[in-house]
Amino acid sequence: MKIVVDAMGSDTHPTPDVAGAILAAREFGDDIILVGDEQRIAAELAQHDTVGLKLHIRHASQVITMTDKPSEASRSKPDSSMHVGMNLVKNGEADAFVSAGNTGGILAVAMLHTLRRIRGVKRPALGVVFPMPSKPMVIDNGANADCKPEYLLQFAVMGSIYLERVRSISNPRIAILSNGEEEGKGNQLVKETIPLLEASGLNYIGNIEPKEFMRGAADLTVTDGFTGNVLIKTAEATASELLKLLRAEIMGSTRTKLGGLLAKPAFDAARMALDPDEIGGAPLLGVNGVVIIGHGRSNAYAIKQAVRQARLCVAEDVVSAIQAGIVT
Amino acid sequence: MKIVVDAMGSDTHPTPDVAGAILAAREFGDDIILVGDEQRIAAELAQHDTVGLKLHIRHASQVITMTDKPSEASRSKPDSSMHVGMNLVKNGEADAFVSAGNTGGILAVAMLHTLRRIRGVKRPALGVVFPMPSKPMVIDNGANADCKPEYLLQFAVMGSIYLERVRSISNPRIAILSNGEEEGKGNQLVKETIPLLEASGLNYIGNIEPKEFMRGAADLTVTDGFTGNVLIKTAEATASELLKLLRAEIMGSTRTKLGGLLAKPAFDAARMALDPDEIGGAPLLGVNGVVIIGHGRSNAYAIKQAVRQARLCVAEDVVSAIQAGIVT
Repeated sequence: MKIVVDAMGSDTHPTPDVAGAILAAREFGDDIILVGDEQRIAAELAQHDTVGLKLHIRHASQVITMTDKPSEASRSKPDSSMHVGMNLVKNGEADAFVSAGNTGGILAVAMLHTLRRIRGVKRPALGVVFPMPSKPMVIDNGANADCKPEYLLQFAVMGSIYLERVRSISNPRIAILSNGEEEGKGNQLVKETIPLLEASGLNYIGNIEPKEFMRGAADLTVTDGFTGNVLIKTAEATASELLKLLRAEIMGSTRTKLGGLLAKPAFDAARMALDPDEIGGAPLLGVNGVVIIGHGRSNAYAIKQAVRQARLCVAEDVVSAIQAGIVT
Repeated sequence: MKIVVDAMGSDTHPTPDVAGAILAAREFGDDIILVGDEQRIAAELAQHDTVGLKLHIRHASQVITMTDKPSEASRSKPDSSMHVGMNLVKNGEADAFVSAGNTGGILAVAMLHTLRRIRGVKRPALGVVFPMPSKPMVIDNGANADCKPEYLLQFAVMGSIYLERVRSISNPRIAILSNGEEEGKGNQLVKETIPLLEASGLNYIGNIEPKEFMRGAADLTVTDGFTGNVLIKTAEATASELLKLLRAEIMGSTRTKLGGLLAKPAFDAARMALDPDEIGGAPLLGVNGVVIIGHGRSNAYAIKQAVRQARLCVAEDVVSAIQAGIVT
């Protein structure tokens, strides 16, 4: 298998990106193609022991940064690491593309300039697995701020295929995120999507609230990209603020400080259970190729995990399954 | 001052509702009118020492329950405690209405049958103060699942008046919730609302993400009721799941158990800082009267805090200020 890793993706590229690629090459034994500034990648590689690893460099002269406007940059930087990397997948020289770069940039380069949409897919979407014990997945997580009912139906189809193939969940339970679990709750989009889901032949279980979502009441929850983005960012922000508050309270007295010290392994375990790095990245579903998007703050381990996810998508042929599964 | 407390509101009514009314009558010295089933209220009052407290009962023969469909029940149960209670406010026999009942029911009874909308207000909305250290407020929290830009502008105006009057924040910082803090981020509704906020004369500071919201970057954040509801429920669910996970990890070994025991005061303090009961309730802004809606799970303390909030709204004449402040 040949996996492309965008060396210019993460906030502190190319250090974690290259280090992650090395971890992946060592663990999986695959060919890893690092795309980006050749000199910087080579300098980074020189810091590591890479003997026997199948690491390759492909030069790209431009970088789409975190602050670039996606559609503009995707047009004005045709030799970006994203263009070069996804074209390798498009041309069959590689099997998947992994990047921790600007999400909007990856979307624009994938959809408008390289891999393009799968025939019949109205809107490609980002699926995200939440780092909660129940590992619930939500789609869309931010690719499409405004959605139509037909899009959400397709998100359910694509996400269902992904979960069956990559996470071996047969007949995944599908829900729609709403402002209440009672029947009749929801905004216009939710109300218009429900009949489509009911008639879809998917394992649709109804509308759920964030509480049920978190507890794993469904394997896959569909929502528009605006709400999905608010959902994951609210969860991240709440966890971070709560831990900050707890830390401050624990530091408040000698007794609680000692308690915090003794309980540290529990805190560490909880933090690890909730660590998004464990999951690695979000699959972009609905384009003609495997694309996994990591967090901008990804470390080497997260990049390696994103490669793991990309490998699974390739091995299980998720793209062909979506190509076959989308009813046009 | 005369405050109506819906005795039939909370999930376990009338116990916490009546107990909360007693706490409020004792602490504030006001007249409290308990509305609902006369016999059940009297039986509940008999369990307490109420000597010298200005507690009154007003009978209502019907109850709008948590599972009732709001608009249907508001029509078919004209003698509900909500109707009777809000009519007391409408007729000038009381100054404010407090209920921990079915939110949709309170909205429907207020808007369609009793207090009605303030002239010029397109949609009344629910304001909620988050139980975070920075006490950020969001509006709308669920009254209006589908919104137009003009509604959000009015939410900003009403919320701004509320914060100035009740929480003494002069010129409150107003933001709009979005899927990114960069300019140009947002769904259609956000993008169309921003120019209205910019031209409003309010202290508009821009679009913010959940992270900045939690940290108190703005005093008031406007959003549609669907997203606002997902925001608060996601925060609640995340905090609850995280604490559950931490507890399980702490119970995992003798060392961490001891640590947890020693750190317990810190956990308790954190839990109290995040306790929604401290805040008591959400003001329903935009109707001709003070209405405070508590959580269905409210305990007596939360009901008392909701009465405190109602008193502030009355004392600071929030309703007249909104009547004067809404540009029609």
